Amino acid sequence: MVTPLIAVEPKSGRFESIEVAVAEGGGELVPVEQAEALIWADAHNPDDLPAMLDRGPNLRWVSLPFAGIEPFVPYLTEDLTWTCARGVYSKPVAEHALMLGLAGLRGLTTYVPATTWSAPEGHNLFGGKVTIFGAGGITQELIKLLAPFDCEITVIRRRADPLAGANRTLALDDRLHGLADADLVVLALALTDTTHGVIGEAELAAMADHGWLVNVARGGHVQVDPLLRALRAGTIGGAALDVTAPEPLPDGHELWAESRVIITPHIGNTPEMGVPLLADHVRSNVANLRTGRELEGLVSVTAGY
Amino acid sequence: MVTPLIAVEPKSGRFESIEVAVAEGGGELVPVEQAEALIWADAHNPDDLPAMLDRGPNLRWVSLPFAGIEPFVPYLTEDLTWTCARGVYSKPVAEHALMLGLAGLRGLTTYVPATTWSAPEGHNLFGGKVTIFGAGGITQELIKLLAPFDCEITVIRRRADPLAGANRTLALDDRLHGLADADLVVLALALTDTTHGVIGEAELAAMADHGWLVNVARGGHVQVDPLLRALRAGTIGGAALDVTAPEPLPDGHELWAESRVIITPHIGNTPEMGVPLLADHVRSNVANLRTGRELEGLVSVTAGY
Repeated sequence: MVTPLIAVEPKSGRFESIEVAVAEGGGELVPVEQAEALIWADAHNPDDLPAMLDRGPNLRWVSLPFAGIEPFVPYLTEDLTWTCARGVYSKPVAEHALMLGLAGLRGLTTYVPATTWSAPEGHNLFGGKVTIFGAGGITQELIKLLAPFDCEITVIRRRADPLAGANRTLALDDRLHGLADADLVVLALALTDTTHGVIGEAELAAMADHGWLVNVARGGHVQVDPLLRALRAGTIGGAALDVTAPEPLPDGHELWAESRVIITPHIGNTPEMGVPLLADHVRSNVANLRTGRELEGLVSVTAGY
Repeated sequence: MVTPLIAVEPKSGRFESIEVAVAEGGGELVPVEQAEALIWADAHNPDDLPAMLDRGPNLRWVSLPFAGIEPFVPYLTEDLTWTCARGVYSKPVAEHALMLGLAGLRGLTTYVPATTWSAPEGHNLFGGKVTIFGAGGITQELIKLLAPFDCEITVIRRRADPLAGANRTLALDDRLHGLADADLVVLALALTDTTHGVIGEAELAAMADHGWLVNVARGGHVQVDPLLRALRAGTIGGAALDVTAPEPLPDGHELWAESRVIITPHIGNTPEMGVPLLADHVRSNVANLRTGRELEGLVSVTAGY
């Protein structure tokens, strides 16, 4: 087997462990000018990618470090093989989603700021109805975490193909049926033209009055004005948002002032959690390249994910 | 089989569903003067129990509605069979413990009060070290909830008998070994003379700097001054307390002012969650009495639990 020649760029950012992973996967670290593969390891500045690509005439594979690659879509070209970190961060993000849902149902928006012993509130997740949008890695990991809670799990996805661990799956067009009396609604789907604003007035109205909406996908999935109305009318229990639109959510945005909203700054997967997982992914894919196996996380250039 | 004659008292409180459970279990509801069993269904006023007992000359079994029965200990007598609701509320309490631990590790004490997009923080429970004090129903349910998280679980109990799902068990005297670098320490043990103040300076010092202490047992297990010192010195991540000493925690208590403390008002099991579970327990035990099977939740009068 030939040793693949790999560049890890740009030279900013925290990627010592990524370089180690390349070596452990059987690759040789080289400058981009000689490389057949580029491991893009920067958490910011996607717009620096094209100039780097221009420097690598031999490149045939580019590895992107994110599961959702919207910022890179303009630079995707058919002459290269692209991979993303699809599924790589599913475990920490699923953990965060479960935490947010439990915290909401159990009243932490009341109790964390409290400075006095207050009345009991809270709803069990045990035996509850959970509706999850999306059927990818996060959903699959979340279903594993939910297994001991004996919930009725509905998964809503593009087509209603069954998914292991879900009690039922519904197509996106039938989503209102899947939201009736939901205790927890978790968004873990890709953002596309079809799913933009997928949670609006009707979807929120279908949930249980104490139900919590948890978004670990993209801010654009949720229509903010209907959400604010539902929160103020008390027709849902609350919303826990790890993603917002715009993001970062600007100071003074109305969502900050809502007492039944938890906003976390896109930390389903923090850098500390993610870098070791990304390193595992890179190690595995470099080994795949070296041994001629299919790369993980292949991106469809036409679909953009 | 003879129909057991059962009284449900006192006539305050919310126990319609308990009376239904008695009937469903095959018992006949009678005044305490005629009853052979007393289902005590009051969440308050344990001191009213002795007068009720005096009114029931035929009583031979008293069912108490709590898992921890400290307030009733002065009234336990050897001439009666006593049962408590041991294990009855384990599922909701274990759920609450998991929620508190996750919320602490994931930084909700920062993010719930935040009104601006702030820096990422948080630690995974996935793959973490969890140390649980106690080996009863709450611990057993918590171990089930933790199973998908692939944690290293240490259980600390009176004697080091193994427990299903725990990677190791240690005797209470060896607890410091079981706390080394713990990400999460959960208290779910009975309060006795031996376990009073079981968490002090040395125990807190053994935990990981980011580790969270979760108490769903009794406030008396934790020494408050060492806890405050550990919080202020940053040698633990924080503390989530569903129980306190005294309880309710008085306004102005120093714990209310600590930013890395979550206090919930003894809601591991709220009345809404607990009444259906208590009804199940009563139904089952009335049926046990009727059919001559052993009652669940038998109390040792000498041990007091």
